[in-house]
Amino acid sequence: MENCLFCKIIKQEIPSFKVYENKHVYAFLDINAATKYHTLVIPKNHSENSFDANENDLSEVIKAVSKIMDHYKKNLGIHDIQIINSNGEIAQQDIFHTHYHIVPRYAADGKNIERNQARVPDEELEQCRSNIWTIE
Amino acid sequence: MENCLFCKIIKQEIPSFKVYENKHVYAFLDINAATKYHTLVIPKNHSENSFDANENDLSEVIKAVSKIMDHYKKNLGIHDIQIINSNGEIAQQDIFHTHYHIVPRYAADGKNIERNQARVPDEELEQCRSNIWTIE
Repeated sequence: MENCLFCKIIKQEIPSFKVYENKHVYAFLDINAATKYHTLVIPKNHSENSFDANENDLSEVIKAVSKIMDHYKKNLGIHDIQIINSNGEIAQQDIFHTHYHIVPRYAADGKNIERNQARVPDEELEQCRSNIWTIE
Repeated sequence: MENCLFCKIIKQEIPSFKVYENKHVYAFLDINAATKYHTLVIPKNHSENSFDANENDLSEVIKAVSKIMDHYKKNLGIHDIQIINSNGEIAQQDIFHTHYHIVPRYAADGKNIERNQARVPDEELEQCRSNIWTIE
């Protein structure tokens, strides 16, 4: 959809750090990461949120989430992950294109599933980017 | 699985307020609700969390989540919902049977996706229970 940030990311009109892609979904590192390796998974078909996304797209998203979780566990040693999907402005949705957050959690990370709190410093993000690769 | 709280709920050995059920999943109101109509959706096959749940079970869970969201929107006027799935002790998972939270959000509810904070008072929970019904 025109003027949708995530549609532009899918079309590569805006750069992103891709983690995974298939015919149905696109996954990339969240630029406003709550924790290291915070990742977003989005369906390629535009929908505002899970209320209007079709079942097949949601199913494809959750399969991709599962694949990425396995990847992070195996290759990054991440054993603790929260998945979050926000629908509606009051429910803290910021971008109105359906997206699932994959939020890795770490011992004493001080988080309590608070979005929009302190961000990971840029240098740590850079470290993440250099330490990750797309799944084939 | 023996001694799994949620397996016992599925088998009706422990009572719960059912919202939805099909061959693959069971959904019920969370007794420790973060907000009104806080609901849990679980696969009937036991798995510890999304790391070891199979793809089909996760797909069925997300379809049920979607169905329940539509139900709440249409019948309760809830337009804001967060979906949360916690995997691993550090990621604030409490019960080790895969479960997806459906957390309705309300204007000025004071939440910031904090689990294990103040609970909905019992009388409000009771009101929820009397104001809900299972989807056929």
